[in-house]
Amino acid sequence: MRGGNILHMQIKISDLRKYIESILLSSGFLAGEAKAIADVLIYAETAGKKTQGILKLLGNEPLQMQKYRKKLRVEKETTLSVFINGGRNPAMLVGKVAMQRAIAKCAAHGIGIAGANNTYASTGALGYYVNEIARKGFIGVVLSGTPKGVALYGSRDKRVGINPIAFGFPTEQEPVIIDMATAAMTWYGLVQAKMTGTPLEADVALDEEGRPATIAERAMKGALLTFGNNRKMSGISMAIEMLTGPLMGAMAPQKDGTLYNGNFFLVIDPALFIGRKQFKRHASELLKRLKTSRPARGFTKFLLPGEKAQQKRKKAEESGFVSIEQEVYEAFLKLL
Amino acid sequence: MRGGNILHMQIKISDLRKYIESILLSSGFLAGEAKAIADVLIYAETAGKKTQGILKLLGNEPLQMQKYRKKLRVEKETTLSVFINGGRNPAMLVGKVAMQRAIAKCAAHGIGIAGANNTYASTGALGYYVNEIARKGFIGVVLSGTPKGVALYGSRDKRVGINPIAFGFPTEQEPVIIDMATAAMTWYGLVQAKMTGTPLEADVALDEEGRPATIAERAMKGALLTFGNNRKMSGISMAIEMLTGPLMGAMAPQKDGTLYNGNFFLVIDPALFIGRKQFKRHASELLKRLKTSRPARGFTKFLLPGEKAQQKRKKAEESGFVSIEQEVYEAFLKLL
Repeated sequence: MRGGNILHMQIKISDLRKYIESILLSSGFLAGEAKAIADVLIYAETAGKKTQGILKLLGNEPLQMQKYRKKLRVEKETTLSVFINGGRNPAMLVGKVAMQRAIAKCAAHGIGIAGANNTYASTGALGYYVNEIARKGFIGVVLSGTPKGVALYGSRDKRVGINPIAFGFPTEQEPVIIDMATAAMTWYGLVQAKMTGTPLEADVALDEEGRPATIAERAMKGALLTFGNNRKMSGISMAIEMLTGPLMGAMAPQKDGTLYNGNFFLVIDPALFIGRKQFKRHASELLKRLKTSRPARGFTKFLLPGEKAQQKRKKAEESGFVSIEQEVYEAFLKLL
Repeated sequence: MRGGNILHMQIKISDLRKYIESILLSSGFLAGEAKAIADVLIYAETAGKKTQGILKLLGNEPLQMQKYRKKLRVEKETTLSVFINGGRNPAMLVGKVAMQRAIAKCAAHGIGIAGANNTYASTGALGYYVNEIARKGFIGVVLSGTPKGVALYGSRDKRVGINPIAFGFPTEQEPVIIDMATAAMTWYGLVQAKMTGTPLEADVALDEEGRPATIAERAMKGALLTFGNNRKMSGISMAIEMLTGPLMGAMAPQKDGTLYNGNFFLVIDPALFIGRKQFKRHASELLKRLKTSRPARGFTKFLLPGEKAQQKRKKAEESGFVSIEQEVYEAFLKLL
């Protein structure tokens, strides 16, 4: 179906969860671990962040195939911080622990900060973590290190990661979630474009010679660019690299050649400043003000950052169903 | 000289400082206050961030003309946080106090966080604050709220500020400073373009009808855009708005119509994670790796984010002189 119309199926979310957990259990994960990973994957699927969903269980390096897992180990801890050696566990598992510890420390002291290194593959959609944080009434900032597939603005060699950043804010209604990669596209996006022969958009990648690449195969030998191909997003990507790489000691490939990644979780209690209830009131007031803006020319509707994903999640939660590409879902079912 | 060649003068930095302090003293500031403000302005001038330099003492609303100053008041304090009512003092003064308090709390507990509201006009170049933080061996993140001159992506009405963000990282050499506005340009940039009749670049502003504006005068009736005019930088701008507005209680214009701004300072001790010395070593190692990248096609040299400003500051510090536009400097001298 690729290249033409892509068929989608409506999948019952409770079935999806059951199948994900079953696949993970049969790969040796404990029930709690399987649930934790399923939570992150289902968040991504329902938010429409499909490259962060069940695709993570497919492909050449599916997250459930990591065989060198050790126990998580707390390397350092203070009343407000924890530094975790992820033991090469899937980053979604380590991320959930880090998030929970940071939330607990924030609840006790007003701030919680958690860092991890030695995590395997992707943390998944960071929106998941900041949403959990915001649902507790706290403000969350989560950053994640990834394999080095991106060239900073003005350069042509892969030196930084896709480097996502997410913010979550409690409001009087649903939390506001802002969740983005600082890269122009994901590596998986390149793989997909190669498979389907789709040309790349402008300003997303360079070829081996450092020239703009529109053919995915050439881009894979070159490098991805930061989103918008400009110096500012490149600066934010570099800051995320500092906070997830050097700060977390996630600097060098391991003996087996894999670079295990670092992650950063910050949780802030609004009670340190304006107050919990007041913050929610103010945040909702800000949203209301923002929404009074008329659309710019060329836009039929003005959607706030994160609003589209939020609408998708709401629809999925209310209906109990989520839309998944047929081909992906069929490959996923084969894992059962 | 505007519109044609702009003449620059080489000014002795020690003279510049003397004059700035003298202007502030004669406007009723105390010696320590004058020095604090001079520090921020001189940082901006030497880093080449000219819209954040002595221009702040010129124009219709120069920072020294704020007459309604009250004492700073600490509204809330914990071992790791402080929430300051800025008493409508210049944001550069309040910012320095907030920064110093956050550094002290970080030195004692591993994290320090400071917020302020009710600050007047601009904090100046945020690079100043994160550089001071990084020079202590800590990691700094500073955000600043500003008047609402910017439309979020897809919208056409002014609802958020210029919303700058800065990061500072200690290394084995000079700190790495990443300092940017999330807006495409500053309001002052518009004023300047109007004066000189310079057309605006694409994607920096909209006119009153929500169409792309290339004439500054029209843009002033419309709105500035976020940098790159895309959904991601718009998301970061909205997150900064949340952290400096709702969180700091900087929501509503005061009786005199002025919206006093909120600011956010976060200081992190790398000792919570990989360690202070190790972080510096890793950060320098990362810089070295980044610098091994070849320039992309179309670039003769690859400069890291923040590298150009750093080079300018170094040159100024070594020579003792800074280059200032003649017309600006002459207007400045008239304040004496």
